[in-house]
Amino acid sequence: MRTSLCDTLGIEHPIVAFTPSEHVAAAVSKAGGLGVLGCVRFNDPDELDRVLDWMDQNTGGKPYGVDVVMPAKVPTEGTQVDLDSLIPPEHREFVNRTLDELGVPELPEDEKERGGVLGWLHSVARSHVDVALRHPISLIANALGSPPVDIIEQAHSHDVLVAALAGKAEHARRHVDNGVDIVVAQGHEAGGHTGEIATMVLVPEIVDAIGGRAPVLAAGGIGTGRQVAAALALGASGAWMGSYWLTTAEYGVTMGDSVTQEALLAANSSDTVRSRIYTGKPARLLKTKWTEAWAAPDAPQPLPMPLQNILVSDAHQRMMRASDPQAVSMPVGQIVGRMNEIRPVAEVFNDLLREVEETFTRLDKLR
Amino acid sequence: MRTSLCDTLGIEHPIVAFTPSEHVAAAVSKAGGLGVLGCVRFNDPDELDRVLDWMDQNTGGKPYGVDVVMPAKVPTEGTQVDLDSLIPPEHREFVNRTLDELGVPELPEDEKERGGVLGWLHSVARSHVDVALRHPISLIANALGSPPVDIIEQAHSHDVLVAALAGKAEHARRHVDNGVDIVVAQGHEAGGHTGEIATMVLVPEIVDAIGGRAPVLAAGGIGTGRQVAAALALGASGAWMGSYWLTTAEYGVTMGDSVTQEALLAANSSDTVRSRIYTGKPARLLKTKWTEAWAAPDAPQPLPMPLQNILVSDAHQRMMRASDPQAVSMPVGQIVGRMNEIRPVAEVFNDLLREVEETFTRLDKLR
Repeated sequence: MRTSLCDTLGIEHPIVAFTPSEHVAAAVSKAGGLGVLGCVRFNDPDELDRVLDWMDQNTGGKPYGVDVVMPAKVPTEGTQVDLDSLIPPEHREFVNRTLDELGVPELPEDEKERGGVLGWLHSVARSHVDVALRHPISLIANALGSPPVDIIEQAHSHDVLVAALAGKAEHARRHVDNGVDIVVAQGHEAGGHTGEIATMVLVPEIVDAIGGRAPVLAAGGIGTGRQVAAALALGASGAWMGSYWLTTAEYGVTMGDSVTQEALLAANSSDTVRSRIYTGKPARLLKTKWTEAWAAPDAPQPLPMPLQNILVSDAHQRMMRASDPQAVSMPVGQIVGRMNEIRPVAEVFNDLLREVEETFTRLDKLR
Repeated sequence: MRTSLCDTLGIEHPIVAFTPSEHVAAAVSKAGGLGVLGCVRFNDPDELDRVLDWMDQNTGGKPYGVDVVMPAKVPTEGTQVDLDSLIPPEHREFVNRTLDELGVPELPEDEKERGGVLGWLHSVARSHVDVALRHPISLIANALGSPPVDIIEQAHSHDVLVAALAGKAEHARRHVDNGVDIVVAQGHEAGGHTGEIATMVLVPEIVDAIGGRAPVLAAGGIGTGRQVAAALALGASGAWMGSYWLTTAEYGVTMGDSVTQEALLAANSSDTVRSRIYTGKPARLLKTKWTEAWAAPDAPQPLPMPLQNILVSDAHQRMMRASDPQAVSMPVGQIVGRMNEIRPVAEVFNDLLREVEETFTRLDKLR
């Protein structure tokens, strides 16, 4: 399987892996796809710098990219203290009460006050871009759509392409107007931030809307070669896959996080929920006792971005350190129903390629 | 494009059209697909009988099917009067107040008291089956999943196949265990009754779950040849399309309903909502002032099936007779964004076939 995207990105197979794990990203790039490292977990730009150094040494010279979380409009930001003061005490009480009810222990003293996940802040996302552009990256993707035009220009001046996620055709058009090079058409069934329109409808709609001005990657619901082939049938130039790498061995190497993986392995395709509780914007998450608590009639409404993430940041840390797969907070798409064993990235990747070929052969026989 | 389903159903192209319009159903069958006439609009079995007589004379001897709405479990039914008494007065007041606010006129005196749409009642659906089996039908499809086993056996004794819609893999398995011959995997993006799981994820899941015991039709989000090809890539043996025929010329011939078609033509893929207000079970509808009124904080919760449909039946009649495309009640899928002109069925059908071939050719070049 080869599309024009392979030439655009200098890759062998048009499969792009979004992942917070540098081990997954490197393994995908080495397998001939494009690994895209999610930067939102790096509060400290120096830590991102060190991880990208590691990437530079472990991708065998193959291309890779990074993913940031940056609104097109620059929001007014305060300091951490200012933002904290905007969180209603009732919300904090609800979070603490819920964690107590779920039996989630407090963080050890030496891990408290780490300050939450700051990658959702515009200034921090900008520092991610600055750091990343000092490395030989091929792509900057933005989870929240088109980044500000100056970021796009900065990337282009480093010969780095820019990709932007879109959940509606009108957004995709706007992204390309801004100078975005690749559109990721992310359907309703995807994990993380996601819109209402399903991949089957969204992909050809976006392909038609931007009329060949940029290649389109299909995202949402992809975990088999049949689904990659379907994405290509819909007019995409490749597949953007995020959730499916969460149950690879390499993800476990980075995250050391067997509880989350255990929860993902046990889930079926009905075990997700789209909710604003993760960041303040609708995102698809694994359905757990934590998401159920927020769906109860007495639960507060989630706060807007970035307040909601600050509110739940400690809770996420606490649940990740605890050992209850029923109480985790994890973005994942409906493809979770097909994530049923821990496997190495290379094996997953080769299975995808093999099934794409099988699907093409099967379709050819229907003619 | 030919799949095993073509032999199973004796059709030329594996495209099945669900439609309440006999003119659409006949045109699809004549074009080489399978037209499946929705029976729920027929309160009077004799009227269905007459329409099926018309089908027998106007399908050129090509196969066709019918679609009924029948729960697998036989519910306790009262008479129309009993059911009416179960509807809270507050619900009736809300409906009347909403229609007044939307400026929807009352029905003329001679059209009142027609008794609502009874096709949602089990007894009426059974009478539809009895009538249909007196005609040379090829297929009975059930919108609510597997029909009761005695209905399946009755169909089989007439050499009629049974299809059942499924929104989850476990439902599909149960349908096939009951003797259902064809599973329609209907994704979240579909119009009418629909589940949470999107077509991209659902179709291969159901194909794998039933392991070749029955062919699978993909439903939800299909309106172009690219989407038909994607459905086949996902492992489906064909496409089940419902919404897309609502803006054909033939639909207008049956329904004489230019207001609804006008509303559909104007809508984009974001203009649908999944709600229980149509029948009591979650169904995707065109987003209008009517659906928005039910989504308001002060609106009552929809009633369970079949009460909700009885409650809103007169309202549906009133809105259909009125001339405001902003106040209609119409099940439709997200593909509505691609329904932008009134065209004859044959033209739509031929475009689908042409684009499937183009897609296969395009995919072949990616190998």
